[in-house]
Amino acid sequence: MITAVTYNDGVVTLLDQRKLPGDSVFLKLTTVEEIKAAILSLSVRGAPAIGIAAAYGLVLWAQSNRKEQDLNVFKQSLITEANGLKATRPTAVNLAWAVDRLLRVSDTAASVDGAVETLTQEAQKIDEEDLLICKTIGEHGLTLLKDGDTLLTHCNAGGIATAGYGTALAPFYLARERNMTLHAYATETRPVGQGARLTVWELEQLGIDVTLITDSMAAHTLQSGRIQAVIVGADRIAANGDTANKIGTLSLAVAAKAFGVPFYVAAPLSTIDVHTATGADIPIEERAAEEVTHVHGRIITTETVRVYNPAFDVTPHQYIDGIITEKGVIRGDYQTNLSALFHPAASH
Amino acid sequence: MITAVTYNDGVVTLLDQRKLPGDSVFLKLTTVEEIKAAILSLSVRGAPAIGIAAAYGLVLWAQSNRKEQDLNVFKQSLITEANGLKATRPTAVNLAWAVDRLLRVSDTAASVDGAVETLTQEAQKIDEEDLLICKTIGEHGLTLLKDGDTLLTHCNAGGIATAGYGTALAPFYLARERNMTLHAYATETRPVGQGARLTVWELEQLGIDVTLITDSMAAHTLQSGRIQAVIVGADRIAANGDTANKIGTLSLAVAAKAFGVPFYVAAPLSTIDVHTATGADIPIEERAAEEVTHVHGRIITTETVRVYNPAFDVTPHQYIDGIITEKGVIRGDYQTNLSALFHPAASH
Repeated sequence: MITAVTYNDGVVTLLDQRKLPGDSVFLKLTTVEEIKAAILSLSVRGAPAIGIAAAYGLVLWAQSNRKEQDLNVFKQSLITEANGLKATRPTAVNLAWAVDRLLRVSDTAASVDGAVETLTQEAQKIDEEDLLICKTIGEHGLTLLKDGDTLLTHCNAGGIATAGYGTALAPFYLARERNMTLHAYATETRPVGQGARLTVWELEQLGIDVTLITDSMAAHTLQSGRIQAVIVGADRIAANGDTANKIGTLSLAVAAKAFGVPFYVAAPLSTIDVHTATGADIPIEERAAEEVTHVHGRIITTETVRVYNPAFDVTPHQYIDGIITEKGVIRGDYQTNLSALFHPAASH
Repeated sequence: MITAVTYNDGVVTLLDQRKLPGDSVFLKLTTVEEIKAAILSLSVRGAPAIGIAAAYGLVLWAQSNRKEQDLNVFKQSLITEANGLKATRPTAVNLAWAVDRLLRVSDTAASVDGAVETLTQEAQKIDEEDLLICKTIGEHGLTLLKDGDTLLTHCNAGGIATAGYGTALAPFYLARERNMTLHAYATETRPVGQGARLTVWELEQLGIDVTLITDSMAAHTLQSGRIQAVIVGADRIAANGDTANKIGTLSLAVAAKAFGVPFYVAAPLSTIDVHTATGADIPIEERAAEEVTHVHGRIITTETVRVYNPAFDVTPHQYIDGIITEKGVIRGDYQTNLSALFHPAASH
């Protein structure tokens, strides 16, 4: 299993996902500024992996500031750095979730050295937990599928978007461990091509039969009866179940509903933001026109065209047949059932 | 107005649409084999333009065989050539329609010279008629729109896909002639990029404000309320209104329905095939994997991936709010109302 983000003794090693599938290049980063640049440039991407990378980014900052004498100054600067990290990408909530989790544990530290130690341990805990969470998501996902099924997925919610196993792709890993066969259709996922570049590559590494289609072919493929379920990841799930995910997800959800194919979102609890009421409250990142107008550095349209480049869309909860979390598959009244995941006592 | 296909004295001049928008290259073709190659390679594309090019292709063949002494041999060979032309692209019905129209008029010819003359005149008539038909489609299309509207279109159903004016883009030409403002969103239209390369270029030539999005962004754009209508062309319309058009059209139709945006198909009567009962009977062309895996000759995925590359999809008639033809906007019971276009007496 290839790991997208690893931390060891003051160095964060990132698989540079802009270079895949042509080259497997690992970046060695030692400063929070380098981590921010890697998040902005999509060298590291995928909501859980961004969260892990950001947590380690804060650790890098803390370690290079452990000579600071004044604990309050240290904590104040830590908050500033945390906000800088959070600002890099606004849509995925795992980034803010991981950074805030680090701020909380450091808050009780009695010394700068203690804070640095605590931050490092917590970041590693987030990383290790994510691996187990993803594996559990895969287990729950498998209960919705049967041997021989063909799944359509979008973007890359695979092992390299997480600490391992992935979210939407986790069932493929688990199925292989159990000699169960699943087939995949992967959408190209323009403009950045995470499906064509990353999901195809990752599933081929796994030995999964995968067929590439353009985003424009998904509705026809769903209409044709080739697909038993659509499974995608998420960047933020609102309290009512509305789900922000890579641009193009909404199109798949609407077509899946029209042609009677179940549509599932796979995501850890860290992607669910109960403080965001509905999808309308999720900020949608817009990215540079060049992502649309250029492929491999070459222009594919006119020099003068105006471009609209939203990086995410929001799928209304009524299009989602189930949200696969580490605590099981959530269905029905998402408002109540998602909230119950965070307040288990209240659901009794 | 740039003309995609022109015929003059034994030479067919084609705008090479593979080279746009970077280069405006005109090919001079003098044999039916060259015409077939140009249709196969997409140098000429768009259902009406393919029909016109094929008609002129048959003319080129006839003119180079006018020395044939035996009229029956000539007619038999003409049928063989016609079938060869029809086999180049199976989905668009205008190709077969134009070629069959030439076969019918030549059938009554009393000499080879007479047949060559008749074929040439009929091909020119198809070309001239298409220009007027497209203009009339634009007039009827405009009745559905109001000043300031923003339309989403897919692929290129513009002037260069026809003898002029286009089908889906005809309202933009007519609006400009009347100082009415229409805005456009154009989908990229992977894999071949007719939206990014051709529609953006054509609308910019026309001075229309056009915004490019990837296919994956269409559902979000429709959901956002930016679009007052979707308008697309067609490659074949079945007797019940089911419509084959460039892959990705179905996705737009389903999303337009979900978000309450009217979805219109603009096409001449020559695109309506009353002999095809439903969309299920329309053959869908599958094209080479390289269209999906390579952009500007460079690979955008793994070397080993399997690809599914259907060039068209079929939108069920219930997603279509109106079919804009040269005889007006057809709505409601397409089975009855499309049939009535061809048998006007029966509708009284």
